[in-house]
Amino acid sequence: MTFAPLRLKKNEDRRLRAGHCWIYSNEIDTAVTPLQGMEPGQLVEIFNDKGKLLGTGYVNPHSLISARIVSRDHKHPVNGSLMVHRLKVALSLRERLYTQPFYRLVFGESDGLPGLVIDRFGDYLVIQITTAGMERMKSDILAAVEKVLKPAGVLFRNDTASRELEGLAPYVEDALGGWPDVLTVEEHGVRFNVPSQGGQKTGWFFDQAVNRGRMIPYIQGKRVLDVCSYIGAWGVQAAVKGATEVICVDASSSALDAVDGNAQLNGVAERVAGLQGDAFDALRELRLANERFDVVLVDPPAFIKRKKDTKQGTLAYRRLNQLALQLLNKDGMLISSSCSHHMSESSLLQEIQQAARHTDRSLQLLERGFQAPDHPVHPAIAETAYLKCFYLRVLPTF
Amino acid sequence: MTFAPLRLKKNEDRRLRAGHCWIYSNEIDTAVTPLQGMEPGQLVEIFNDKGKLLGTGYVNPHSLISARIVSRDHKHPVNGSLMVHRLKVALSLRERLYTQPFYRLVFGESDGLPGLVIDRFGDYLVIQITTAGMERMKSDILAAVEKVLKPAGVLFRNDTASRELEGLAPYVEDALGGWPDVLTVEEHGVRFNVPSQGGQKTGWFFDQAVNRGRMIPYIQGKRVLDVCSYIGAWGVQAAVKGATEVICVDASSSALDAVDGNAQLNGVAERVAGLQGDAFDALRELRLANERFDVVLVDPPAFIKRKKDTKQGTLAYRRLNQLALQLLNKDGMLISSSCSHHMSESSLLQEIQQAARHTDRSLQLLERGFQAPDHPVHPAIAETAYLKCFYLRVLPTF
Repeated sequence: MTFAPLRLKKNEDRRLRAGHCWIYSNEIDTAVTPLQGMEPGQLVEIFNDKGKLLGTGYVNPHSLISARIVSRDHKHPVNGSLMVHRLKVALSLRERLYTQPFYRLVFGESDGLPGLVIDRFGDYLVIQITTAGMERMKSDILAAVEKVLKPAGVLFRNDTASRELEGLAPYVEDALGGWPDVLTVEEHGVRFNVPSQGGQKTGWFFDQAVNRGRMIPYIQGKRVLDVCSYIGAWGVQAAVKGATEVICVDASSSALDAVDGNAQLNGVAERVAGLQGDAFDALRELRLANERFDVVLVDPPAFIKRKKDTKQGTLAYRRLNQLALQLLNKDGMLISSSCSHHMSESSLLQEIQQAARHTDRSLQLLERGFQAPDHPVHPAIAETAYLKCFYLRVLPTF
Repeated sequence: MTFAPLRLKKNEDRRLRAGHCWIYSNEIDTAVTPLQGMEPGQLVEIFNDKGKLLGTGYVNPHSLISARIVSRDHKHPVNGSLMVHRLKVALSLRERLYTQPFYRLVFGESDGLPGLVIDRFGDYLVIQITTAGMERMKSDILAAVEKVLKPAGVLFRNDTASRELEGLAPYVEDALGGWPDVLTVEEHGVRFNVPSQGGQKTGWFFDQAVNRGRMIPYIQGKRVLDVCSYIGAWGVQAAVKGATEVICVDASSSALDAVDGNAQLNGVAERVAGLQGDAFDALRELRLANERFDVVLVDPPAFIKRKKDTKQGTLAYRRLNQLALQLLNKDGMLISSSCSHHMSESSLLQEIQQAARHTDRSLQLLERGFQAPDHPVHPAIAETAYLKCFYLRVLPTF
């Protein structure tokens, strides 16, 4: 492989030195190494202003993030071999922590592979490429997963909105042929059928697996409401683990069909019901109907997708959690998540606390959950941390 | 009981309205309700500037925190009955979450009982009173625990430094007689003998119990170093759960004797060794001796006890974690805690990340732990959150 040079301006290697891997356009000395003429995804050797080699990576002149460093080890520049090595390092972590092959195998920057996500459903892999650099390495990626994992099927689910920022067209591709209609996941001993295409994200939210496990002591013998249930990962699991009754709320009727199917698969269909509708409307209706629950699970899609949505999204989190609080029996539990990177933990907790004061309740924060360990956080890359989950006991004001 | 009035200045009820329970001296309208003449711990009815009753609580004219609200429910002012009620509410949470009676039963403000901590060791209770208000209610506290729990023994371990701020003398008192020399705890199936007096805090750190459980997947078949081991809660547990060798470092020889005793109690004495000395010195010596470990557990006493210690304490966390990183084998784990409220999670992570860059390592933050659910956080009282624990995979720089 050949590498074009990319030179940074003076002191603009600070972020890299701190451990981050992104380079913005204004940090590049374009007088010496112009971005014009470079192809999106082209491999580069990255130098500081004194000409010291910092590592290898890839550029995209059309993206705000103009380059990402992939390897600082000069003996091992970015190439197909490095891809295999990084994949093995990622796999060894998951194999240590998971007894079954259902997890996020590669989590982008945190696994040293910026722009690449791989979710593993047993012998089947769903791959998401979000940068031009990784798109150009697609054949290396495929070769690496075939070498390391010998998968029965690989789906490139390259239809995420963030590809637009890199000038990449959306597409979905069955790379090996024979991709199945349904994937299967087992989580904490509960089985789920997952839509293999057309579901949310890669089909399953592995990031909440640990947090769902931690719900178990709180739902024994309880009436549970699962808000934004999708295909029932929380709700069906609650029913299997001892909840007496679960109502799953979702806007999508096909998601609720999948809830029903997953409840049947686990023999708890009698204890799980679906309620179709917008979450805010459904919670208001349940309140008017004087329905009450012992535990409310709130796990909505990101209300704050971009920083500019912060104000409106924060209000949405506040409103949804307030509605949830109002549906709780005395001494209830609110288990409330946010997957918005721009919604900080402290802000979310503050909003819920204000909602509690407004509705005359006291809160005890018992546990805090984050994204599961198959979604490691890179301590120098704040953007890799996004998920939080609060386990709140809700009492009369004291 | 009789309640003296305490009136706040205009708008000085904001913190209380947000859910906090502390009142500072400058928020009190001392022209109307002078603090002089009030006795430390005296019960009060707290009013806003318009004369609206906000609740009942207690004062201490000699403390920076001049009053704490205990009950906002006018039908249930602070008294012996409320003590019994709050204790039952606290107990019901622990009984739901714990299969065995080893936990913090009451965690002060978070359980609606500011100034009171109760740790439960089966039939034995260790009680810590830290405010004059609670000291005056001592007989109510004793009556409440006898009514609700019928304990075999109660020790008032009223010798914490924070009592000084309230003008309270330190003392230890065996309230019922016959207090034993040794207490017993079982955690995740591992038994420990705990010094019943003279150990750190109440004798055992229940706050780390969940975090110790989460260490298990990381220590299987590994060589482990336990830094600031105290009586072996982490280290002995690691040996029982599958570590091949554990070295416990502590400055106290009696703590290391207890480590040895607890290792024997669980049949792992052959795999657990003690190393007496200052943590910083011991880690340097181990490095000079070329010792390496797969997992290093760092759980020091608070390096930042007061806000003014922040700079120096932050440096101490940085140095200790850097020494720990330098003792790790390739692809090792650093499990690092801080119990300093004034050391924020983000600051601690940043310090460890800088130490990793300095020693040419990349980190993956796999999990984040906090104080166990028997130490609930009050979302409006930041002071109730203090413990954090990072589970970091340590790799060669990528």
